[in-house]
Amino acid sequence: MDSTDVLVVGAGVIGLGIAWEAARTGRRVAVVDPAPGSGASFAAAGMLAAVSEYHYQEEELLGLMLASASAWPEFAAGVGGDCGYLRTPTLCVAGDAADRQAFADLRAVQGEHGLAVEPLSVREARRREPLLAPALAGAFEIAADHQVDPRRLVAALCGRLGEGAFVRSRAASLVWDGPAVVGVRLEDGRELRAAETVVANGLGARELRGLPVELPLRPVYGDILRLRVPGPLRPLVSATVRGLVRGRPVYIVPRADGTVVIGATQREDGSEGVSAGGVYELLRDAQALVPAVAELELCETTARARPGTPDNAPLLGRVRAAGDREHDGEAHVPGLIIATGFFRHGVLLTPGAAHVCAGLLEGRTDPRWDVFSPSRFGHRGIPALAGATAERPPAAEAAAANVRQAT
Amino acid sequence: MDSTDVLVVGAGVIGLGIAWEAARTGRRVAVVDPAPGSGASFAAAGMLAAVSEYHYQEEELLGLMLASASAWPEFAAGVGGDCGYLRTPTLCVAGDAADRQAFADLRAVQGEHGLAVEPLSVREARRREPLLAPALAGAFEIAADHQVDPRRLVAALCGRLGEGAFVRSRAASLVWDGPAVVGVRLEDGRELRAAETVVANGLGARELRGLPVELPLRPVYGDILRLRVPGPLRPLVSATVRGLVRGRPVYIVPRADGTVVIGATQREDGSEGVSAGGVYELLRDAQALVPAVAELELCETTARARPGTPDNAPLLGRVRAAGDREHDGEAHVPGLIIATGFFRHGVLLTPGAAHVCAGLLEGRTDPRWDVFSPSRFGHRGIPALAGATAERPPAAEAAAANVRQAT
Repeated sequence: MDSTDVLVVGAGVIGLGIAWEAARTGRRVAVVDPAPGSGASFAAAGMLAAVSEYHYQEEELLGLMLASASAWPEFAAGVGGDCGYLRTPTLCVAGDAADRQAFADLRAVQGEHGLAVEPLSVREARRREPLLAPALAGAFEIAADHQVDPRRLVAALCGRLGEGAFVRSRAASLVWDGPAVVGVRLEDGRELRAAETVVANGLGARELRGLPVELPLRPVYGDILRLRVPGPLRPLVSATVRGLVRGRPVYIVPRADGTVVIGATQREDGSEGVSAGGVYELLRDAQALVPAVAELELCETTARARPGTPDNAPLLGRVRAAGDREHDGEAHVPGLIIATGFFRHGVLLTPGAAHVCAGLLEGRTDPRWDVFSPSRFGHRGIPALAGATAERPPAAEAAAANVRQAT
Repeated sequence: MDSTDVLVVGAGVIGLGIAWEAARTGRRVAVVDPAPGSGASFAAAGMLAAVSEYHYQEEELLGLMLASASAWPEFAAGVGGDCGYLRTPTLCVAGDAADRQAFADLRAVQGEHGLAVEPLSVREARRREPLLAPALAGAFEIAADHQVDPRRLVAALCGRLGEGAFVRSRAASLVWDGPAVVGVRLEDGRELRAAETVVANGLGARELRGLPVELPLRPVYGDILRLRVPGPLRPLVSATVRGLVRGRPVYIVPRADGTVVIGATQREDGSEGVSAGGVYELLRDAQALVPAVAELELCETTARARPGTPDNAPLLGRVRAAGDREHDGEAHVPGLIIATGFFRHGVLLTPGAAHVCAGLLEGRTDPRWDVFSPSRFGHRGIPALAGATAERPPAAEAAAANVRQAT
């Protein structure tokens, strides 16, 4: 039976970042994934948009996003120069007056949090980006929001970890030894043992049996386009352009290789394929911002699901030992860390999640991130374990019995 | 050195149809193509639309289209039931009053040629196709226009011919022996000899050296979409729907497997990739006809070039021995048949081209098709042979010298 120090379930950007950070501290690391980088990371545009992705009343998330954004330069340098990290600014442009007002209202709150959003005249915006449509209603610059290429990031992290770190199989269940998680069982029946198991497989965590908490993840699908800019039109834009067009968000992310990424829809329609209506709306709205989008070559249309949570915040940290007790914050399930539910922010939060998990492996916790406790939905959660008896911990078993009696 | 009876250059639907028809008469056949079925045939929707594709003043082409349409049932039966031949009717729908008038004007001319186009009320059209938009301006039914699945047709014809018939290489030049074509030289230098060589490689004929005529082919690009219809929306439409939306043509072809094909743009912009603007317009216009198109899954976007000619008619037949003499219709280059330039009509004209070529192989000609002579642009054409001296026929050599003296 194989054994290692840290076993990471899931090889998207979050799992790979955690695995690499753990490996840097000298730990032996294994990553379990049937197809590394093929989930939400494969679709992601890679905007590092702590400022422009700020949403009202998500202050704790903002803190983690800003911490992670400030960690990105060092993280990118450590991974190497091949992950497409670019410090291009972000330009927010408004299709009409209502869109401009929405940006202005958000800017007021961003300002209260010390986030720099500079208004530009449309003339100035078009001076910087000559292919912007003349009829835009307003523009703002966010110098702090940058980008990375998630596919190159995945490839770079996989290269850093080395092929020997990967187990190309699906984790079926956690393996328990008394009150502790001691590894995973693969779908082919093999067991992998580890001192610490990190569940970082995004929406895949819903199918992982033996979890001691409910992880209320839901798929939020997105369609995203990749397009080639013909030589005479390069660069289509030099900054990342985030627009609102009649209230609908659309963004255009320029890559160094002359392509652009246009995204992204948010759908909760359960449809895994690329939405024809979504592609239509992206092309329509992107053309409203930059008419020359019509002249591009459409190279790829991709749809993937992001792991959404009820409060749009990640499920990140250790799990309280008794899932049904609200304020017993000290005792945790040994050997288990959760890192999923990063929704729209997985790429931005990759260094942040890696640093948080590295701290947990060292026995350190940061009270700022307690709010992301994966146990916060746990009191609803025990019935979700039905059918996983073989992998269920004794405490959860008892708690589940209590819930069954109570309902 | 290999030798065969009939050597067909090009394994699109036209070349494969000709090869199969030749093989059925007991001839040994070889087909030269580096990637069978990967050109225009790969993109084609497969509408057998002799009536709805009728264009003003293309009477001779109409004759060939109608002859080929009437040959399709027997041809499909011979190929086998796996080429997706369906006798679903075609419904023409008009987005607005001007589009309706365009259909009505064309219908008057179609009627003069005995082509049956039946007007329907929008109510009646929507009774037959409930997912049609309510706001359409008019509808017409064309019972005679059917469909085939070109990819399945290619697969079926390849299967009929057998793997042994294929030479997966590119033909670089014709090989001449005195005044006759005796085969081709491949790009790897091998020679294939044949009693008859049929040039049926679409736009690829432009790169084939040693041709005794100019073939004024130009690429007319098209973007085409393939979409999956979710179960609750099936069938999206039961008839092929051809629309005009603000003067722009768009069609929706339903397949038996629950997918639909939406096409097709016509671009002469030289861009081989899928046009973002083209995809946008197809989705926009298709939604104007059938709003539920927004709910479909976009599975594939494809662009290919069709081989266009100056008069929109194919280049089909034997080549006059002296390309610069207009009315010397009797003497032909022995061993050479041309079959290219089928533009938008390659699938419809597959049986027609096969029958014409089968006749030529037997020494029969049909005066109705003289108008498609591949020599009809030849008097302009000799300079196009520059650089092909090694493969140039002696007569053409002399003619080229004459042209050079004259200019």
